[in-house]
Amino acid sequence: MYGVTVRDHVMVAHSFEGEVFGPAQRLHGATYVVDATFRGPDLGPDGILVDIGRAADELRQVLAALNYRNLDDEDRFKGTNTSTEALARWVADELALRVPGFAGDGLLTGLVVTLHESHVAWASYERSL
Amino acid sequence: MYGVTVRDHVMVAHSFEGEVFGPAQRLHGATYVVDATFRGPDLGPDGILVDIGRAADELRQVLAALNYRNLDDEDRFKGTNTSTEALARWVADELALRVPGFAGDGLLTGLVVTLHESHVAWASYERSL
Amino acid sequence: MYGVTVRDHVMVAHSFEGEVFGPAQRLHGATYVVDATFRGPDLGPDGILVDIGRAADELRQVLAALNYRNLDDEDRFKGTNTSTEALARWVADELALRVPGFAGDGLLTGLVVTLHESHVAWASYERSL
Amino acid sequence: MYGVTVRDHVMVAHSFEGEVFGPAQRLHGATYVVDATFRGPDLGPDGILVDIGRAADELRQVLAALNYRNLDDEDRFKGTNTSTEALARWVADELALRVPGFAGDGLLTGLVVTLHESHVAWASYERSL
Amino acid sequence: MYGVTVRDHVMVAHSFEGEVFGPAQRLHGATYVVDATFRGPDLGPDGILVDIGRAADELRQVLAALNYRNLDDEDRFKGTNTSTEALARWVADELALRVPGFAGDGLLTGLVVTLHESHVAWASYERSL
Amino acid sequence: MYGVTVRDHVMVAHSFEGEVFGPAQRLHGATYVVDATFRGPDLGPDGILVDIGRAADELRQVLAALNYRNLDDEDRFKGTNTSTEALARWVADELALRVPGFAGDGLLTGLVVTLHESHVAWASYERSL
Repeated sequence: MYGVTVRDHVMVAHSFEGEVFGPAQRLHGATYVVDATFRGPDLGPDGILVDIGRAADELRQVLAALNYRNLDDEDRFKGTNTSTEALARWVADELALRVPGFAGDGLLTGLVVTLHESHVAWASYERSL
Repeated sequence: MYGVTVRDHVMVAHSFEGEVFGPAQRLHGATYVVDATFRGPDLGPDGILVDIGRAADELRQVLAALNYRNLDDEDRFKGTNTSTEALARWVADELALRVPGFAGDGLLTGLVVTLHESHVAWASYERSL
Repeated sequence: MYGVTVRDHVMVAHSFEGEVFGPAQRLHGATYVVDATFRGPDLGPDGILVDIGRAADELRQVLAALNYRNLDDEDRFKGTNTSTEALARWVADELALRVPGFAGDGLLTGLVVTLHESHVAWASYERSL
Repeated sequence: MYGVTVRDHVMVAHSFEGEVFGPAQRLHGATYVVDATFRGPDLGPDGILVDIGRAADELRQVLAALNYRNLDDEDRFKGTNTSTEALARWVADELALRVPGFAGDGLLTGLVVTLHESHVAWASYERSL
Repeated sequence: MYGVTVRDHVMVAHSFEGEVFGPAQRLHGATYVVDATFRGPDLGPDGILVDIGRAADELRQVLAALNYRNLDDEDRFKGTNTSTEALARWVADELALRVPGFAGDGLLTGLVVTLHESHVAWASYERSL
Repeated sequence: MYGVTVRDHVMVAHSFEGEVFGPAQRLHGATYVVDATFRGPDLGPDGILVDIGRAADELRQVLAALNYRNLDDEDRFKGTNTSTEALARWVADELALRVPGFAGDGLLTGLVVTLHESHVAWASYERSL
């Protein structure tokens, strides 16, 4: 099984609802360093699983919808806590929608997105394609 | 599948028994930078898999039993080599015992613990919960 | 010349005023991974420049005043852009005020604070003590 | 399941064939920081999965066949693009051939090799043993 | 004194002349992860030393002249070894020429460029502006 | 001013004397990831400040005197606390003694050694040559 990973980052504001979050219930923010890993069992005719440059572009486009925003004001996240793990899933699902447009037919079978919220904590979401 | 990882570290002394270890048969030591990843298929009602702060606290408590100690003197490791992979398992098993006390009921289904012994070597242990 | 560095992090929301900031004029946020380096020409009687544990505590206390906050609402930053370099200076100046309380008399002669805003950008402020 | 990882690096020149590669069709080069992870369900009699020093030696020997070379001139890669993912597989397969010579009988059941081509892109190949 | 650093990377092929270089006399290549640090004693009217986005753009433009190239074929490097330290100086000098075009008048007084050739070796060049 | 840095690591046991050290008064250990930076204003005739391979060899030889040892038993450290900053100085002074044997005449004018004791703490010693 092959995997190809590209890294980018996004800077957002948000707050959380629920006592478990303590001071993170206040409006604060985060830099998420985001790793997107594309997986598949075989390489395509050019000897690659996915074009790294194209994969990086797609990730950047997905993150652009979040970048420099207050997620509390975004309709797409209304009523949900934009936790690191929830955002990892959102990024993965958005990337999954884009896969048919940029990757070779059927080459990619899985996807993992990891969001690093600091040097000591990160979360990921893994799904099939 | 979601994953949430927290990082901490621990500093220990120990020695190894067996010719394979060469100079590491002498008493020496290590800083282990420790990553604990909790895994589960669904998020809880607050939109998180596990409280990152709580997970970090639990990891710190587990590591406190090792920190600033000579593992050769610890009864719990008598007769075993405290190799990086053996310690990764010990940390994972200790965390597993604590999961019912700090994580939502049934949310966590797996656990991976990685101990980095240097910038060029690390070991991990993965188990189900 | 010796230097001792401790690392911590802080998560904030803020916005910037000025066209140069483009989309960062919107309310957004950042995780700053913060390195504080204490410098001095000699070690104290215990053979250390500064107690690393104590230095880490002091840095954590300084960052606690920012953590999980919207810096736009903080009186201390009214009328200023809380750029990465400006925050680096603020942290350095706050640490400098605390140095007489936790460091050996006259041992520390300089201080550098670096704030990493992502894996591809960081800023620092260096001052004497 | 245990895993043990060692890291090394290799510096090569090469070029790619195919329009998808854009400017990378020109002769250029890369430093690959290479992680090799050995996996197995049990530890051997010495309490280790694999001797980390020996694993590092084997990885270094495999990489020596590539190091400081123009891969376009190497017969073993004639007619193929030496993409990061293709090289990850080549390194994994070479290591797999060596496993019987340096690892305990049957201890190792899987192998992952990751090649980091920069701080923002890497690729891996995972196989059973 | 303030400092602002941006990171990018570049992938090149080259060879070295001189017995000291051993196998690196063969055509090989490298990924250089490049950090450019701009320094100055004061912040400008917007509360920044330099626009991080603009600084990153300038660095990318400088590196574009090297990226995906065989430096042995570049006239600008004829007769010189493109060692890591020599390339660090070249990047620093190119950035210095650009500073008047993108930075506030007189704000920047120094520049450091660091090229990481692997996870275990890097070189830098520091100059005034 | 040029700088060339090489990285290696060393694993030791030791204990500290003095109440300030708290639990670190017990025998424990550390992995130190060690960076040695050589500095000088000019490059030599081969276009390098120092041979990176040779510099790495010298650092490895210096660290070999510490590796896999209990520093409490080493005569060279009798009566002193082998703090991170004290060890940084020791490594720097040992490297300085070796400089005439491996570096071009007069090229190197300064040296910085940094010992990382974990992902959140490190210390350095800087000296002229």
